[in-house]
Amino acid sequence: MSLDQAQSAIAAAVAKATELGCLSDIALVDAGANLKAFVRMDGALLGSIDVALKKARTARLFNLPSGTIGELSRPDGPLYGIEHSNGGLVSFGGGIPIADGDTVIGAIGVSGDSVENDQAIAQAGAEAIQRPSPR
Amino acid sequence: MSLDQAQSAIAAAVAKATELGCLSDIALVDAGANLKAFVRMDGALLGSIDVALKKARTARLFNLPSGTIGELSRPDGPLYGIEHSNGGLVSFGGGIPIADGDTVIGAIGVSGDSVENDQAIAQAGAEAIQRPSPR
Amino acid sequence: MSLDQAQSAIAAAVAKATELGCLSDIALVDAGANLKAFVRMDGALLGSIDVALKKARTARLFNLPSGTIGELSRPDGPLYGIEHSNGGLVSFGGGIPIADGDTVIGAIGVSGDSVENDQAIAQAGAEAIQRPSPR
Amino acid sequence: MSLDQAQSAIAAAVAKATELGCLSDIALVDAGANLKAFVRMDGALLGSIDVALKKARTARLFNLPSGTIGELSRPDGPLYGIEHSNGGLVSFGGGIPIADGDTVIGAIGVSGDSVENDQAIAQAGAEAIQRPSPR
Repeated sequence: MSLDQAQSAIAAAVAKATELGCLSDIALVDAGANLKAFVRMDGALLGSIDVALKKARTARLFNLPSGTIGELSRPDGPLYGIEHSNGGLVSFGGGIPIADGDTVIGAIGVSGDSVENDQAIAQAGAEAIQRPSPR
Repeated sequence: MSLDQAQSAIAAAVAKATELGCLSDIALVDAGANLKAFVRMDGALLGSIDVALKKARTARLFNLPSGTIGELSRPDGPLYGIEHSNGGLVSFGGGIPIADGDTVIGAIGVSGDSVENDQAIAQAGAEAIQRPSPR
Repeated sequence: MSLDQAQSAIAAAVAKATELGCLSDIALVDAGANLKAFVRMDGALLGSIDVALKKARTARLFNLPSGTIGELSRPDGPLYGIEHSNGGLVSFGGGIPIADGDTVIGAIGVSGDSVENDQAIAQAGAEAIQRPSPR
Repeated sequence: MSLDQAQSAIAAAVAKATELGCLSDIALVDAGANLKAFVRMDGALLGSIDVALKKARTARLFNLPSGTIGELSRPDGPLYGIEHSNGGLVSFGGGIPIADGDTVIGAIGVSGDSVENDQAIAQAGAEAIQRPSPR
């Protein structure tokens, strides 16, 4: 993921957050799950800094939306407790992997409002740079 | 567990993963629960590195399959919360202790696909080197 | 520190890095020493992500350039060992507090090249938004 | 870095260790500084597991031999204290970045004997898979 791509995703996410009236923390990680870019909108929650970072990281580490990890990790789910791995995952929505065709190039994580809004904002950010598989 | 044994287990696990169409992270720990060997198949999940390591470690620390720890550690189970011990356990299937007769010589941990497939792959790895009790 | 200010500082730092032929990781923290914005230029060192974050945090935590903390924390200095506090400080140059008049509003941290270049890039970022005391 | 490459590097490193009469822990990380493969030779030090992992990680995080980080991080060096970043670096020899032409594809870390021998073994592993820049 290039910095241009990361900044395009952030711009799209900030625009969506503004449209929804949300104040968001937004993080992008690259294919190696390493931080590429981050912004905290003015007034966004301090606790959401780490949550946004971990949502992005969770989504790339498992190539799944962070909310899917959450469904799988509940007490009656097959991955109960996985959130304790990898230095701590976030297991609710707002983290989305980003693909360029068949290759995962990173992920976005958004935190600061409801899970539904965080997801919509992350989706807007991801859509700004992802490209569908040619198949 | 010798390095030869660890590599035999890994080879058998990789062969089983390939047969099942899985991309796996595979870890072997010795009798001291210390890392002996590890491989990440090309394309296997990054988040499964830590999960595979912790599954192997969990299985040897308690001489139980990691999934059994999971059954015991659910909210209504007798070991509720044990996953927070030992720097973090993994409490779902894919980690299996390995015995040579009556002696536990280590464990294998596999992560990267469904719990069922991870378990089958770990089992294939363990069977390559374990020996039954003569009794 | 507003996000506009943070992004102005980052833009100035990236411009300076480009002028010097450096690839930098650049972090901004606000008055609460909490992350406000971060970018990793394409090709910048992975290890500099954490170093840039910690330089910015170090500079704001003590309202001193990170290099000054380094001078004070050497084996014969008065603050020997302070780098182990606060979850880990960075004690060489590239972190600079940013003031608006008499008030510290945050700090910038830059890592990726020589200490001299990191400092020059951080200085360029800080100068884009700091304002001198009216006194 | 493919698993084939990682295993070729490990085989070359084990051969060199055997030639030198050393028992080594050997780790390979990929371009994202994430673990790709690891082996502990029979009888190799337990404490060298973590050291080998951190040497490989250090070398990739900064695209420098771990020993160079050590020279720079001494009390009178420009990067004094950097070993406290990134969850802990190793700042003596035995970690070497691996390039394919102009691209760093990962790193190898070796621990278990003298620094000189660890470095020679790491070098043998790296040379098995690195390719020089075409320029």
